[in-house]
Amino acid sequence: MLKMKKVTIGVDIGGTNTAIGVVDEAGNIMVKDNIPTPSHGDIDRYIADLAAAINELIKSVTLINEDAEVIGIGIGAPNGNYYTGNIEYAANLSFKGAVHLVKLLRNYFPLMPALALTNDANAAAIGEMIYGGAKGMKNFVMFTLGTGIGSGIVVNGELVYGCDGFAGEIGHTSFIPGGRPCGCSALGHLEAYCSASGMKRTAFELLAHHNANDSLLADKSYRELDSKMIFDAAEKGDKIGIEVFQKTGAWLGLALANTVHYLSPEAIFLFGGPTAAGDFIFKPTKESMEEHLLPIYKNKIKILPSKLKSGDAAIVGASALVWKEIEKIYL
Amino acid sequence: MLKMKKVTIGVDIGGTNTAIGVVDEAGNIMVKDNIPTPSHGDIDRYIADLAAAINELIKSVTLINEDAEVIGIGIGAPNGNYYTGNIEYAANLSFKGAVHLVKLLRNYFPLMPALALTNDANAAAIGEMIYGGAKGMKNFVMFTLGTGIGSGIVVNGELVYGCDGFAGEIGHTSFIPGGRPCGCSALGHLEAYCSASGMKRTAFELLAHHNANDSLLADKSYRELDSKMIFDAAEKGDKIGIEVFQKTGAWLGLALANTVHYLSPEAIFLFGGPTAAGDFIFKPTKESMEEHLLPIYKNKIKILPSKLKSGDAAIVGASALVWKEIEKIYL
Repeated sequence: MLKMKKVTIGVDIGGTNTAIGVVDEAGNIMVKDNIPTPSHGDIDRYIADLAAAINELIKSVTLINEDAEVIGIGIGAPNGNYYTGNIEYAANLSFKGAVHLVKLLRNYFPLMPALALTNDANAAAIGEMIYGGAKGMKNFVMFTLGTGIGSGIVVNGELVYGCDGFAGEIGHTSFIPGGRPCGCSALGHLEAYCSASGMKRTAFELLAHHNANDSLLADKSYRELDSKMIFDAAEKGDKIGIEVFQKTGAWLGLALANTVHYLSPEAIFLFGGPTAAGDFIFKPTKESMEEHLLPIYKNKIKILPSKLKSGDAAIVGASALVWKEIEKIYL
Repeated sequence: MLKMKKVTIGVDIGGTNTAIGVVDEAGNIMVKDNIPTPSHGDIDRYIADLAAAINELIKSVTLINEDAEVIGIGIGAPNGNYYTGNIEYAANLSFKGAVHLVKLLRNYFPLMPALALTNDANAAAIGEMIYGGAKGMKNFVMFTLGTGIGSGIVVNGELVYGCDGFAGEIGHTSFIPGGRPCGCSALGHLEAYCSASGMKRTAFELLAHHNANDSLLADKSYRELDSKMIFDAAEKGDKIGIEVFQKTGAWLGLALANTVHYLSPEAIFLFGGPTAAGDFIFKPTKESMEEHLLPIYKNKIKILPSKLKSGDAAIVGASALVWKEIEKIYL
């Protein structure tokens, strides 16, 4: 008998696009495809298209690898709820109310061993644990820094979903009472300061504060500025660019210290655009975290860049969910 | 054969006094005793005294209840570390460095099925789960409001210890950057605002702010004021007393909202002196928490008073640790 090679399907549902990939046991994408996420909410049609695309990918993989065995489908989506299998009131998707994603997709894959859904940041955390830098770690936290800030918490080797599947919204913890308005409309959330968008806000505040007409960032409009440009400026020694990273790191470090005081994790992983800046962001973050830690925590908690490849992370993270499910089935 | 009645020993190590009790399966203390916690750190002598006191209590219980079987000793202590069994650098105890409490006590009780140590707030959380209002809950958080603020986090039915046994120091999360100095010397921690001592600080700030010579609290010195006096004043309609509770609740509610965004618990339990004020503290706390929650969390997280009796809670909480240990042994 052939030794089967277990592969998983990862599905990343975004606002305009749904990416699907077949992932091997090491976390490499073997084949991938895209379908549009509907802009007008026809869920039945979307699920049929998604199932067809998944079946096409499975066919193409098993054609080349006769010993490949698909053991499950993992899905990451905004507001994806692990407990219910529903996407619930996601602001950036056109579906109204709660969409029974797992149930609907199950109709097309009745015999698939594992079929599970979670949100993007949780998927990234599981991806880090199964394929990335958190292998073998039992207690860690993942922060995804993008337009917003997502987070996934792992305690005793298990993702923390809370009582309802919604745990891990650290980006929306109050950070500076009465501070900047967050995308969710509340004031002073971490996300409003330390996301890529938060960095852009900081850059404009600093340009204004220093009246810095000579900054490399002074010729950018608000709409065009992004965190990559801030990094490029910082690398060229631009004072505003450097100060953005220092301030962002000081804020983020304080938030990470809070996270340590909650959970005492072995490591905190950072993922997303701003982390490409390396020491510009990691150094001030680490310094600020250490400064704000109680003595019992000092000099032992690692802040690490995610080992997931940025382009593939969403698919790979979603596919990792399958391995956690299989673990539960065979326990 | 007799059906044995399982009993546990709870030990609460405080700064000046160590309380020991035998606790039945319902969480009632059957007999109890006290020995002094040494002020000059002779640990071997202390352990010998503690063992002798425990043996005396076991004797007195088994004399009356022939069918009583002692299944373990649970110990709660400041900076008690569950993983190592050590009390580590506790500021309020005279022992220097790390004291190998479980190891030393084990010499006296080589056959005791369970022998475990944790810190006070964790013990309270486990007590709530085994005997109190959190029975059957898998995800909840316990806050103990006293001189400081302790916290114990339960996720998936297990206490969160983190990578090193030190998780759950929510009282030392930064809450108002640059705010009041905390006992740990950092600025703006939750503990500096919402502990019983924090309430006293708030009262004095408000007396000064309103120049409130007519307040019922205006004849108290800083040293003599306590949270009970503030409650008494509030009950009599004193404006300063009422405002202290309103402000404390507003702050605490914001912190609880942060906790929900981390962990999405089913309930949050409050324990300690200030909770005796009932609606004075619970109402503004609940209102503020709801105001600061993301929509997905609104109107479903309970804020509940602890069901542990205040005088016995430390012993009973520590004894509950035994039941969690037994669960692990027989799993």
